[in-house]
Amino acid sequence: MAIQTIKAFAPATVANVAVGFDILGFAIDGPGDEVVLEVSDEFHPMELTILGDDGQLPLDPDKNTVSIVIKLMMDRLGIRKGVKIQLTKKMPLKSGMGSSAASSVVGAFALNALLGNPLSKSELLPLVMEGERAACGAAHADNVAPCLFGGLILVRSYEPLEVLSLPMPGKLICTLVHPEIDVPTSISRAVLPPTVLLKNMIRQTGNLAAFISALYTENYELLGRAIRDFVIEPNRAKLIPGFYEAQKEAFATGALGCSISGSGPSIFALSDDMDKAQTIGLAIRDVFKKQYINSEIFVSQINAEGPRIL
Amino acid sequence: MAIQTIKAFAPATVANVAVGFDILGFAIDGPGDEVVLEVSDEFHPMELTILGDDGQLPLDPDKNTVSIVIKLMMDRLGIRKGVKIQLTKKMPLKSGMGSSAASSVVGAFALNALLGNPLSKSELLPLVMEGERAACGAAHADNVAPCLFGGLILVRSYEPLEVLSLPMPGKLICTLVHPEIDVPTSISRAVLPPTVLLKNMIRQTGNLAAFISALYTENYELLGRAIRDFVIEPNRAKLIPGFYEAQKEAFATGALGCSISGSGPSIFALSDDMDKAQTIGLAIRDVFKKQYINSEIFVSQINAEGPRIL
Repeated sequence: MAIQTIKAFAPATVANVAVGFDILGFAIDGPGDEVVLEVSDEFHPMELTILGDDGQLPLDPDKNTVSIVIKLMMDRLGIRKGVKIQLTKKMPLKSGMGSSAASSVVGAFALNALLGNPLSKSELLPLVMEGERAACGAAHADNVAPCLFGGLILVRSYEPLEVLSLPMPGKLICTLVHPEIDVPTSISRAVLPPTVLLKNMIRQTGNLAAFISALYTENYELLGRAIRDFVIEPNRAKLIPGFYEAQKEAFATGALGCSISGSGPSIFALSDDMDKAQTIGLAIRDVFKKQYINSEIFVSQINAEGPRIL
Repeated sequence: MAIQTIKAFAPATVANVAVGFDILGFAIDGPGDEVVLEVSDEFHPMELTILGDDGQLPLDPDKNTVSIVIKLMMDRLGIRKGVKIQLTKKMPLKSGMGSSAASSVVGAFALNALLGNPLSKSELLPLVMEGERAACGAAHADNVAPCLFGGLILVRSYEPLEVLSLPMPGKLICTLVHPEIDVPTSISRAVLPPTVLLKNMIRQTGNLAAFISALYTENYELLGRAIRDFVIEPNRAKLIPGFYEAQKEAFATGALGCSISGSGPSIFALSDDMDKAQTIGLAIRDVFKKQYINSEIFVSQINAEGPRIL
């Protein structure tokens, strides 16, 4: 029987980026998710295997993001073949690093490539957003869009859906530190009040506008002054033991900006040098270590192209 | 006796710019304020004459923005001369077009030029902000900064004070329509609730970030999609009779964006063509005319350099 096979990778992502709650996200080179897809007329409609998740993710193809998105795509394209999906999680789950987005994107990207790219990335976006809906209850785009397109993505609007690529200055390095604590996304959402003080919105928008300007002018100093969160971080910091000390250490060791990655508990820092980025990671890890919390450090350049075939 | 004389102009400004409440403002070529300063050792410390204000502005030099700022400057520079100030208002007062800012800036700019520019514009900024404090009760920078520097200005932060020049795409033309109704700034402030729904902040920040991107990429279509206010305009629109109809007419006649200028009641529209800008002005004026409200139309390019010596 004829079997078509493909292997692909999709990266972790940092959403919110301090000044862009629910509207900004960027992709990093690694870690991320890998998938092997096998497509054949003779397979059972769908078989799902998952490695690297310690048994945490649902194996029912109707409940896992990777298979939900692949099913949607096949329905959309009118393809009636069977698929074997082997997803390998090479990044922490529930970390605020866009794990579910990477799973949604890696499967869709791989299947699209295997079929000769019938869909553009813009056409794939609403489909992979459905994976987010399945994983998080809402079809957010701030992780899936940067995961799919690479680089820094702005979600300008949901109705109609419009995402824009923004330039990331070339020297930026991202440090991510994932502490081994459990902060469910539902809790991270629940601690956010439904309203924001107008005066805090003014401060935040001043910084957001300056941050976007800094991206276009490659002004690292301005980027550092601007990338400060007065709205979301104060609410979520309490869910991460030692957050403010970690942030202080990050700034002390050279971070331009440091805040919570997505809904946490991972902390991201941006710096302009690989050595600094390593030092920042160790400094943040030490803060968690003092509290008997293990953590993993990931240091990476910005990923400009999104997922790739392996 | 030796008398030094100078004559200068400072432009009207549009603050808020739909997506940048309290943080964005731009200057237009005209209308604006004119001042004639005469400085001499032998004058009484300060004499103030005002033309064109229908007797509405205070003539006490301790209470008018133009003289307050000049006094502050002379104290700052240790100058003990007398000054005769003749301020000519060539723009409507209480219009949301930055009338008090133009007065603050024109005097400071003229005196500085007459003295051989001892202060940079950045040094002048905190002084002219004191004029705004006298006029409006708060030392806002979103009118005085664009009036002083020209172009589109972002007030990133007040503590410390940091303003940034942003690029304005070259084809942009501003239409301003000033209806002859009285909306005190205090009322315009009072109708704003102290909090904003987080979901509205998300929509607004998505548009703000896209607007800043559109400025750098000279993307007029994106600028048009992005320049929408979900936060402030809904509260203030009710203070301007027929606002939504006027806005609809502006869009129908070619406006890229249309919202309230500063705290109103003037309405501004941006378009990419002088003919459109004129048509938009007439269309908005017609909406007011139907309600028996007279209005003045001002159509102008963006002012890139701020005040000028006449």
